[in-house]
Formats: sequence, C-alpha cells, structure tokens
Amino acid sequence: MTSQDNKWIGKRTIRPDGADKVTGRAAYAADSTMPGMIWGKILRSPHPHARIKSIDTSKAAALPGVKAVMTGQDIVDFPVDKSVMLGIQDMRWMARNVMARDKALFAGHPIAAVAATTESIAARALELIEVDYEVLPWVIDVQEAMKPDAPILHDFLQFEGKPSNIAGTLEHKLGDIDAGFAEADVIIERSFHTAPVHQGYIEPHACLVSVSPDGKATIWSSSQGQFMVRAMCAYLTGLPQSDIRAIPAEIGGGFGGKTIIYLEPVALILARKSGRPVKMTMSREDVFRASGPTSGAYSTVKMGATKDGRIVAAQGTFYLQAGAFPGSPIRGAAGCAFTPYDIPNVHALGYDVVSNRSKVAAYRAPGAPIGAYAAECVLDELAEALKIDPLELRLKNAAKQGTKAAYGPTFPRIGYVETLKAAMEHPHYKAPLGPNQGRGVASGYWFNAGGESSAQVNIAEDGTVIVITGHPDVGGSRASTANIAAELLGIDYRKVSVLIGDTSTVGFSNLTGGSRVTFASAIVVTQSTEKVITQLRERAAKIWKIDPEAVVWENGEARPVSDNAGKFPPLTLPEIAAKANATGGPIGAGAQLNTTGAEGGFGTHICDVEVDPEVGTVRVVRYTAFQDVGRAIHPSYVEGQIQGGVAQGIGWALSEEYIYDKNGKVDNPGFLDYRMPVCSDLPMLDAVMLEIPNPKHPQGVRGVGEVPLVPVLSAVANAVYDALGHRFYSLPMSPPKILAEIEPPPMAQAAE
Amino acid sequence: MTSQDNKWIGKRTIRPDGADKVTGRAAYAADSTMPGMIWGKILRSPHPHARIKSIDTSKAAALPGVKAVMTGQDIVDFPVDKSVMLGIQDMRWMARNVMARDKALFAGHPIAAVAATTESIAARALELIEVDYEVLPWVIDVQEAMKPDAPILHDFLQFEGKPSNIAGTLEHKLGDIDAGFAEADVIIERSFHTAPVHQGYIEPHACLVSVSPDGKATIWSSSQGQFMVRAMCAYLTGLPQSDIRAIPAEIGGGFGGKTIIYLEPVALILARKSGRPVKMTMSREDVFRASGPTSGAYSTVKMGATKDGRIVAAQGTFYLQAGAFPGSPIRGAAGCAFTPYDIPNVHALGYDVVSNRSKVAAYRAPGAPIGAYAAECVLDELAEALKIDPLELRLKNAAKQGTKAAYGPTFPRIGYVETLKAAMEHPHYKAPLGPNQGRGVASGYWFNAGGESSAQVNIAEDGTVIVITGHPDVGGSRASTANIAAELLGIDYRKVSVLIGDTSTVGFSNLTGGSRVTFASAIVVTQSTEKVITQLRERAAKIWKIDPEAVVWENGEARPVSDNAGKFPPLTLPEIAAKANATGGPIGAGAQLNTTGAEGGFGTHICDVEVDPEVGTVRVVRYTAFQDVGRAIHPSYVEGQIQGGVAQGIGWALSEEYIYDKNGKVDNPGFLDYRMPVCSDLPMLDAVMLEIPNPKHPQGVRGVGEVPLVPVLSAVANAVYDALGHRFYSLPMSPPKILAEIEPPPMAQAAE
Repeated sequence: MTSQDNKWIGKRTIRPDGADKVTGRAAYAADSTMPGMIWGKILRSPHPHARIKSIDTSKAAALPGVKAVMTGQDIVDFPVDKSVMLGIQDMRWMARNVMARDKALFAGHPIAAVAATTESIAARALELIEVDYEVLPWVIDVQEAMKPDAPILHDFLQFEGKPSNIAGTLEHKLGDIDAGFAEADVIIERSFHTAPVHQGYIEPHACLVSVSPDGKATIWSSSQGQFMVRAMCAYLTGLPQSDIRAIPAEIGGGFGGKTIIYLEPVALILARKSGRPVKMTMSREDVFRASGPTSGAYSTVKMGATKDGRIVAAQGTFYLQAGAFPGSPIRGAAGCAFTPYDIPNVHALGYDVVSNRSKVAAYRAPGAPIGAYAAECVLDELAEALKIDPLELRLKNAAKQGTKAAYGPTFPRIGYVETLKAAMEHPHYKAPLGPNQGRGVASGYWFNAGGESSAQVNIAEDGTVIVITGHPDVGGSRASTANIAAELLGIDYRKVSVLIGDTSTVGFSNLTGGSRVTFASAIVVTQSTEKVITQLRERAAKIWKIDPEAVVWENGEARPVSDNAGKFPPLTLPEIAAKANATGGPIGAGAQLNTTGAEGGFGTHICDVEVDPEVGTVRVVRYTAFQDVGRAIHPSYVEGQIQGGVAQGIGWALSEEYIYDKNGKVDNPGFLDYRMPVCSDLPMLDAVMLEIPNPKHPQGVRGVGEVPLVPVLSAVANAVYDALGHRFYSLPMSPPKILAEIEPPPMAQAAE
Repeated sequence: MTSQDNKWIGKRTIRPDGADKVTGRAAYAADSTMPGMIWGKILRSPHPHARIKSIDTSKAAALPGVKAVMTGQDIVDFPVDKSVMLGIQDMRWMARNVMARDKALFAGHPIAAVAATTESIAARALELIEVDYEVLPWVIDVQEAMKPDAPILHDFLQFEGKPSNIAGTLEHKLGDIDAGFAEADVIIERSFHTAPVHQGYIEPHACLVSVSPDGKATIWSSSQGQFMVRAMCAYLTGLPQSDIRAIPAEIGGGFGGKTIIYLEPVALILARKSGRPVKMTMSREDVFRASGPTSGAYSTVKMGATKDGRIVAAQGTFYLQAGAFPGSPIRGAAGCAFTPYDIPNVHALGYDVVSNRSKVAAYRAPGAPIGAYAAECVLDELAEALKIDPLELRLKNAAKQGTKAAYGPTFPRIGYVETLKAAMEHPHYKAPLGPNQGRGVASGYWFNAGGESSAQVNIAEDGTVIVITGHPDVGGSRASTANIAAELLGIDYRKVSVLIGDTSTVGFSNLTGGSRVTFASAIVVTQSTEKVITQLRERAAKIWKIDPEAVVWENGEARPVSDNAGKFPPLTLPEIAAKANATGGPIGAGAQLNTTGAEGGFGTHICDVEVDPEVGTVRVVRYTAFQDVGRAIHPSYVEGQIQGGVAQGIGWALSEEYIYDKNGKVDNPGFLDYRMPVCSDLPMLDAVMLEIPNPKHPQGVRGVGEVPLVPVLSAVANAVYDALGHRFYSLPMSPPKILAEIEPPPMAQAAE
C-alpha cells in the first residue's frame, strides 16, 4: 500500500483541534477555574547551594487570607543512598526537586509554598516566611564540578571511591578502538562545549487541583503525560492512584520539558490542607530558573579514516550536566553520535555530572544533538582533510539494513542512505553562495520509542466514530488518529472524532515523548479499529444470517464475499450501527499494549548561513532537511515537526544560552534576554520527507519529532566554518564570539 | 454464594459520591459556567391549543445584549403521517415538543427562544417577541378527549377511520375471557380515576452547551442518559453524533422525567447561532407546566373468582393520557396489572389518548401503578366478598416459576410468594389498629429491563482500580459497581474508583431507567473484571514462567495451582501492576453488550393509615414493603429505593394532582401548591428485602427501583377503605374528597 492508494493516510486533513486553537477556545491549564479557588505560590531559594537550617512559616500562616502553608516536610521522602543516575521520571529526585528538604541545590529551588485567597496575599505571605540558610560554596559548570576540590552537592554520590559530582557513566563499545585508530590514515580529535538551552515552550507550567473531603483529587494540568502526573502525585502525596484523576489540558508546547511535574503535588497538598481548589502558574522567570533545560556539555570526539574515506574508528567522551540531581541524557549523546555510520570500532562514554543548576529535563531527542554536534563537526574536518565531499563521505560510511550500532541493535530496513542521496541531488546542494555565505551539512539519528499505549474506538448510533487515546496531543496525534481510523474503516475522516482521555477514562498510556505517540497510538488504534471491523462483519452476517467469514469490509461497507443473486445489498456503517441493539449491543473495541518495533530515524540537513562581519550576527539564509519519516500519516504535521526541530536547533547553535550572575543565579530569565529565534530570524525551512516504511509498524510509521533537531547544531557550525574559514568549538556562535574572531572589513571601519 | 460469603457484595460500603454531595461539592448541571457564557430563555405558549400564524422575533433580536433568537423552524422536522404511538425517546414528537412548529399544544409549549448576555435581558427580549396565535378549542381530560366532538390535536391521528385523539391501543390476551367469567362465582367490576402526577425531582432541568467554530458541541446537562442527550441533540440539530460530547452532570433526581430532553437542543442551536456557550435552566414553574408528569388515567377492571378463591378471569381497560403527543405508558398499565397472579383468562386493553397537556414522560414503573391501583383495589373487594384474607387470596393465586403472564413470558424462579409469606408472618400484619385507623395490602409487579451497557476496568500502576460505566448514577450505581469489582478482584472496595463516563469516553450505554442499571452494569462490569483477572493470571504466569492455566486468582492474589516447593509466593494486584510494562503493557479490559435476562420484580406492601375526621387528612402511620430484590448489592441503596418509591406512591394516593384553571393552564405549578409528601408527613418506611437471586444474572440482581411504587396507590386506598368503610375510586384521596364523604363526629362539631 502506498500513500497514493490511501484516502486519508498521507492527506492534509483539517486538524480536529484547529478551530478551537485559532479562535482561542482551546482550554489550557491556566484557563481552569473553580468556585472557591485559591492561589498557590512558591518561595524559591535565592542561593544556588545552601543548607536549610530552619523554616518558620508561622507569620505567613497567620496572614489573613492565607489558607495553607507547606514545606518539603509535607512531601513523601524517597531517600537515595548510593551513587545512581536517576531516570527522567524518577520520584526520588522529583520529590526533592518539587520542594527542597534539607538543602537548596540551585537558585530557584522551591523551599516552601502558600495558598491564599488572592495572588497578592500569597505573594505577601511568601515574604513573611523566614528561612535560615547556611550558604554553601557552589558550582555551575560541568568541568568545574568534576574538579577534586569542587563543592559536593550530594553525600550519597561517590565516583571511583571518592565523594564526587559524577553520578555515573554509560559506555558503548564495538570492535577494537585502538586497532581501529591504528588502521586510520587520517585522525581528527576535537573538544566541544555546548550551552544548556531551554525547551522554550510558549505556555508556562500551570495547574488547578481540587481535593474532595474524602481525599479524592482532580488535577487539570499542562503536561506531556497525564499518567505521569497521576503517578508522581500519588507517590509524592501518598494517595492511591485510583483516587487521582489527572486531566490533560490542551498543551502550549513541551518538547520534553513537561515530562515531569513541578507544581501539581504542591497544589495538591495545599488543596488538601485548605479544603479549597488551588491554582498555580509559573511566571516565565520561574520557568527559566527552575524548570529543566537540557544539559550543557563538554565533549571530545576523535575519528579516524583511511585515505579512501572509510571511517575505521570513532571515540567520544561526553560530560553532561545533570543539574541539581543525577540524571542527564548521556544515553542520547553516547548512543546517537556515531549511529548514522557503519564504523567497525566505536567507543562512546558518557558522564552524568551534577551541579548547582536546575535539574535538566528531557528536550527533543535528549542528548543526541550534543553528541551529533561533536561527531558531525569532526566528520566535516575529516572530509576536508580527505578532500572528499562531506555528503559523499557520509554516504560511503552510511548505516543501512544489517549495520550493527554500537549501542546494540542491528538495523532493519532504514532510510539514511535515501536522505543522503536526496540531499546530494537537491538543487540546494549545488546552488551558488553569495558573499559572506557558507554551506554546511550534517546528519543525525534518534532511537524513537514505542511503549505502553491504550485506545478505544466506539461507534455512535448514527455510525459516526469516536476514538480515545491516552497521550496529550502535542504534535498532531488527534489528526493522525482520525486519518488512520477513517482509512481503515473506509469512511470520511470528518466522521471520526478523536479525543484525549484522562487517567480515569482511558487505559494507561505512556507520556508524549521520544517520538513515540504516532507510532504507538497508531498500533493500538489500528488494533481497536480492526476489532471493530470484525464486529461490523459479524453484525452484517447476523443481519444476513450468513457466516461472518463470508463477509468482507470494503470502502466503509460490509459485503458478502459472493452474492451472485444480489440478495444482500452492501450494508454501510450507519446501517449496521442503527441495528446494533438488535445484533448484540454497542459496537466498539479497545486495545492496550506495550508497543515495540519503533525503529530509529535519520535525517540529513543542508544549511546556508550568511555572516554579517560588521555586527557578528549569523543568519541562516536557506535550510533544507531531508528525513526518513517512515510514513507521513499527516504530512503537514510531519513538516511542522521538522521545521520546529530545525528552528530550535538554530537557536541552540547561534543565540541561546543561560547567563549566570556572580551569585550563581540565572541573569537572563526571559525571552527578551534569552534569545530564541523568532519567525523574522528564519528563512522558510524546507522539509523533504522520504517515506521508507518501518517494516515493524502497520502503517510503516517512524517517529519524526526528534530527529530534526539532531543534525542542526553541526550543520550550522559547518556552514559558519565554510563562510568564515574559522571553526568554533563552542556554542552558541553568538555575535560576541564571532566578532572576537573576525576583523570588520576596512570599508566598514572607514564608514564608521 | 450467599451474601454471608461476600466481603463487599451486600455490604453497606461508603458511597463514592457521598462526601461530594454532603459537602456541596458535587457539580450539577446548573453549576456549570464558561467564559463568555450567555443565557438562554424560552417563550412559552399561554394557550393550551393554538395555531401559530406568525412569529416576529425582529424586535427581540435588535435588543442590545441579545445574541441569538430561534423558533421551531430551526429544529430539524420529523413529520408524522399516520396514527402511531410514539416511543418514550422518539425524535418525532421530541422535535415538536422541544419547540412548537405550527401549533401550540399545551400552555407552556415552547414557541421561541433567545440567548442574551444576562438573564434579565433575555427575559425582556421574550416580551418583544410577537406571536400571532389563532386560539383553538382545547381538551384536558382523557374522557373528554375521546368524545366525538372533542377538539382534535393532530391531523394525522385517526381511530377506527375517524379523526380522533386516540393514537393507538395495546392488547394482551390469555385464555378465553368470556369462559373465564362464566366459571366465576363472584365478579367485581369497578372504574377508577388517577390524576397525572409529577416526578417531583428536586433539581429542575438545566444545561450548558458550547459549540466550537467547527461545529463540535459539548453539552453538560442533567439527564438520565448522556447517550440519549447526544442522539436527540444530533437528530434535532443535524449534527453527526461524533461531533457531540454529552457530559452527564451529577443528577438531582429524575424518576423517569429526565429520560428525554427539553433544553439541550435549544441551547445548542442558540450556541451555534451566537458562537457563545449558552446556559439554560428551568424554573420550578417551567418544570410543572412543560416537563412530563406521568399520565392521568381512567381505568375499568373486572375480576372473577370461584368460591374457593381461585381467580379465573381478569379484564382491564386503561385509558391513559399521553399529553400533547402520542405515547403514554399503556404497556406498564396493561402489562403489569394482573401479572402477579396466575390467572388462566386475561384480557388487558390500553388506549393512548392525547390532550392539551404537557407530554407525559416516564415515571418510575411507567403505567404500572395505574394498572395495579385498579386491579389491587378490585382484588381487595373480591377478598371481602369471598371472606378470604386479602394476602391469603393473593397467595392462593400467586404467580410462580412456570406461570405464564398475559403479556408474554413464562416466569423462571421468582419471589412473589416469598413477599406474601413474609408479609403474612410480619408483626405489622397482626398489630392492633387504633381509632380511625385502617390497614390495606397490595402487591405489584414491574418488568425490569436489561439493554445496552458498556464498562471498562483499568488497573493503575499501583494496583488500584478505575471502573467506568455509561449511565448516570441516580440510585447508587457507583457504589454497587465498586462492591462488585472489589468482590471479584478480592481487594478493598476503597481501592476501586468508579466514575460515569461521558459519550466520548465510554461505550454506548442506555439510559438510567427501567430498573436496568445495576442489573446491566453489573453484567458488563463482571465481564470486564473477569477479563482483567484472566490478564492478571497471565501476567503472573509470565513472571513465574509457567502456564496461565496453572494460576488461580484468590483473595486478591495470583497463586500457582500447586506449589509444594513454595517456589512462587503469591503475587498481589499491586505487585503484578508494578510489572505490567514488562509483562505486556497496561492491564485493563472492557465489555459492551445488549444485556438480557432482567426478570421482573414483585413487591407486597402493608399500609396503615389514620384518618383525621375533622380536617379530612389521611396520614400513613405505618408502612412495610416486602420485595424480592434478587440480590442487594448495596442494601442501603436498595432500602432507599424502596422507601423512595413508597413515599412517591403515598403522594400520588393522597395529595398530588395538577389543578387546571379555566383557561387550561396549570394553576399550582410549585411545591407549595402541588403537595408532595415531605419527611414530616411520613412515618419511617420499613423495607424488608427478600433475596431470591435472579438465575439469569451473575450476582442474582433484579431491578429494585420501580417495583416499590407499584402497589402503593392501592395499599393506601385499601387502608383508607378499611379505616372509613367507604371506598374512593378516584385519586388523590385529598381532604376535600374525604370530608365530602364523612361527617365530622358530633364532638368535633360541638367543640367548634
């Protein structure tokens, strides 16, 4: 089956959430209100590292209008007693990240919270809380944090037998790395810095929590996973999960940053204490100070190739900032950096390093852009040294079906080669460049993910269809689901309504992340729909009084396999639905399973930049991203994912960074000073979708949301090198850094 | 399995909705609000019968603040072209009941509606609507309406070839009725009037409807069936059902009166026209004038028995008021009247008669109390004539396993005899009576119902359980469901959360009515839970690497069938849930089917009354209701159903009636003038539950909600006869009627 055979799969159908979003009717978490609702606010540590000797909340509690006060003591404790990297949804760190217990570990770390009848009373109450801190020495930078005399954040951390800020390591090995380098004719080794960057979602974290007198809680919140919200709130407050209903609001972006909770358990505890619904929202400043960016990193990559361009060895060491608690995306950095290539000898080593910054959270292909930045820049230098076209070098060494990746798997049919060939043949690659312009290329890989998902498909009495799935729709899963269900049923997609269930109305579903949702939900929606089609055939057979095996479902109708006499005119879905009562009852079916077979995805990007030598700005002037998308269920959304990923990568490469003041506090916690690219900074970003179906998926779906961020940092860096003849080994390549390296041309000087 | 073996079934567990209800947190439809919400109001006909010549809404539309105006022309039309009784949820009458199209058929019939930014602007706008009526002669009474010269309501109605207000008939025949009466030694024939009475739910109808710019509607409303709301709104507005999400609010009583819609499609159309969410609520006056009461009726019953007390023939004719459109509960009257008895020759005939009153709606065992009132009073006279104890006479003739009912079925194991024996042996039956006191007995039957239901049972990650069903919880279905799921799973019922899904989050489920919900939802919840238990056994087997057949589920744990070596310690639900991801994914299952096997229910009541001869009031001083409840899943709720039914029956017997003024308009549309019994009017009502399990149900459930209303009218009437020696053949037996029959005693006169 190709897209051409499809009625809806691959078509740009009107998105079900579109009208609500463009007219402002979509309900986000901060839009929730309830009668009797009060406001929660958090007191945050002004110090990056301090022991909390005492907290006196009595004056705050006594302020008229204050209904509840809490500290870290109100949260269930999950002590950690040995060096361990903690998973991205681990309650052990989340409990202490949501509110500090003994120590404040970053400037912005929650210390206490109040709920009051107005926001201003709550703010005043925070000022009345007296905290006695013992201020401790602190460390922000990943390399500083590994020095022997660095301040140690956690007593339980040890590395090589000594107190350390290194929480753990992750290593991938393939072949014999020393033998590999011995074989090489050319070896390049370079070190790189990347800044921590924020996910930059438009909507700050927000929630409303109501707890009834018998302890049952309802949570409306902005998250990438209502089941994660339920589980974490249950763990941190001691409630059984069945007593919590977590309702996902429409989400204004997440990009990984909403795969954990910050406000929900605080609001829940304040609501439980006060008996009133509690609303909490973060300011943008709170978001920057206290919600996870991705790691900053220090990486060293060494690659060797033979004269004819065969890469024989690749070695990488990636030190990633975890923030205040162990757990950084070293798996993405070490696992993805060299994976686009069929290299016989690989050694990748990641370090997880804590420091006095806010805990990192997932960010679009977590860790992978960091690894790819180092590897793909080294590859560019290797191509130059070998005098081989950089795409040609990649093609020579490209991973394909049967290639074994250092992190484990052997690939089935993948589409990396296709992205390279498409890039090489694309007009962009041969287009002339203007003055001060340069062109760079790079590739990237992301694992993708499957995991647990649930769906239910129900047929209404008039034959229209309702589908429910369990993951927040961040990137268009409602539209994809409608296309798939309509395709399988053979009906108009407008007859299919898709909605996202809450934790009580749909089976367990993992969160939206890892580029898993379209992959996994398509599987459970397909299974559910196929069960429904079986029921429809059975119902038609019952009406005709023939064997269900003698009925086929085609183009939205049940037909008898052979009906020479024309005895049984086809029955449409509405006709069968109208007789559901008489033929057995409601028609509908669900599926819930742990999906597997989410094979990785590859992309290759071409980036043209133009450097303004007077002010040092770098402007991306043309960008084309080629990606194996498996099967584009809804092409507009796939293009949107590719464009969005590229835009974020351009920011990471050129302008985004946290600036800390001398007291270890973020100095630019706002979109005016933390510079993300906006529309006017960017050209139209071209997305070229290549459909090489994933053989392990019913529709051939591969995850598409994360791959497009992976190559961008290096594509831009390689383009800047091409434009300037100078290579930067540190991101962002911001105007001050550019200006420091180049002299303004004499004409410009004269003009001044 | 008896109740004694059960941990939760049969136990008075704490109701899941209790805390919210007693603390005022439960959200009813009128509690819903939305940003930008406006108010809808309905203009109602002042005339009981009038042709609508024109409606001019232009002035109303021009009033500042008015956002939308509509008339019956905005509702999809479903013409009726032949005489037909219309079902209780038939869109053909509902379309024209929701808003009149050509004719106003009762005083209170909606004519037009507006939506405005405030309630007062909406009220003012109604005054600006100009309606040109041609007032027509009208008829209110069922007997008047059948006269040859009565004003005819509908052109399409014909009876015996002539224009008529009789929409149709329903007949049940068994044996040879003439031969039966020929065999009888004693024959009694009497005629009876009953007044139409209102369901009297505390919460008036209310809804909030929001329509998005792409036409998708969300409805919050008070109803007994969210799927009925969805279907009717779809039919009346032309929307596909999948574009409507009907969310059931907590409901403040329905008793059948909320099995149809009044406001929802009006609010939907106004919301669609205005682009704003529209809220509508009925006043109590609206409820009385325009929402369905049950039928008033005129009935004649003739019964014959041999000298030894064998009833040999029973004949009944029941004329029931349908209100303004065809469709009255003649099935309940004709079908249930004689069904408690094993009578060889039966003829029951019902007439459906329209008149210029609001359309009747279902009311607790619709029609059955009307039939039973006539039959059980005649039976009382028969017992007196035969000089047989009235319970003895009933016992002699009681239906039992194998008895064929005139309306069709042959009974399986039923418990009618048990109710009679329990009543005869109960101390109440022998207790002495005081002055002016009398005792009456009566029995009653209700069909009960099964039908379509859906449920889903999901296991949370911590092993707690969420169950979702699809019918509004009017009578405690959440509590019953929690008991059943906890019992089957072998866990604490507090670990089971039950909620009512909306039309998008649960499979199709028929409405709450017909005493079907505990019966049907228990079946689908049992099936779902059993599927979950199968999954739990499979998961345990996977963990132990043994065959699933070798695993049993007992007391909330999986155990190997034989484990002599103690190799596999039992796995609890939380332990298995924690490993769900590794053993196949989310644990959960659903069931949806058209349930059958809802066998009928029987009750026998003893009522003691005391008549105050001075003021003519009748006071019930003792009441005991014996009922075959099948299996009381939650006994407190079953008792509550019995007590509630009896209380409503006492009102029907003694005080409730519509009083019409000379213009055909209800003159007592409020609880001060329409007199329902309140707590201080009633003694403690004793409910004696007899558990004769329904053999066709997994837990033995029979419907229990409707039976208790059926015998009350006649039990009270028979008691009044016993007290006064005078028999009333017309309800209510209100003080004016009582006083008209009795002389105040001389002493009382002297005292005045």
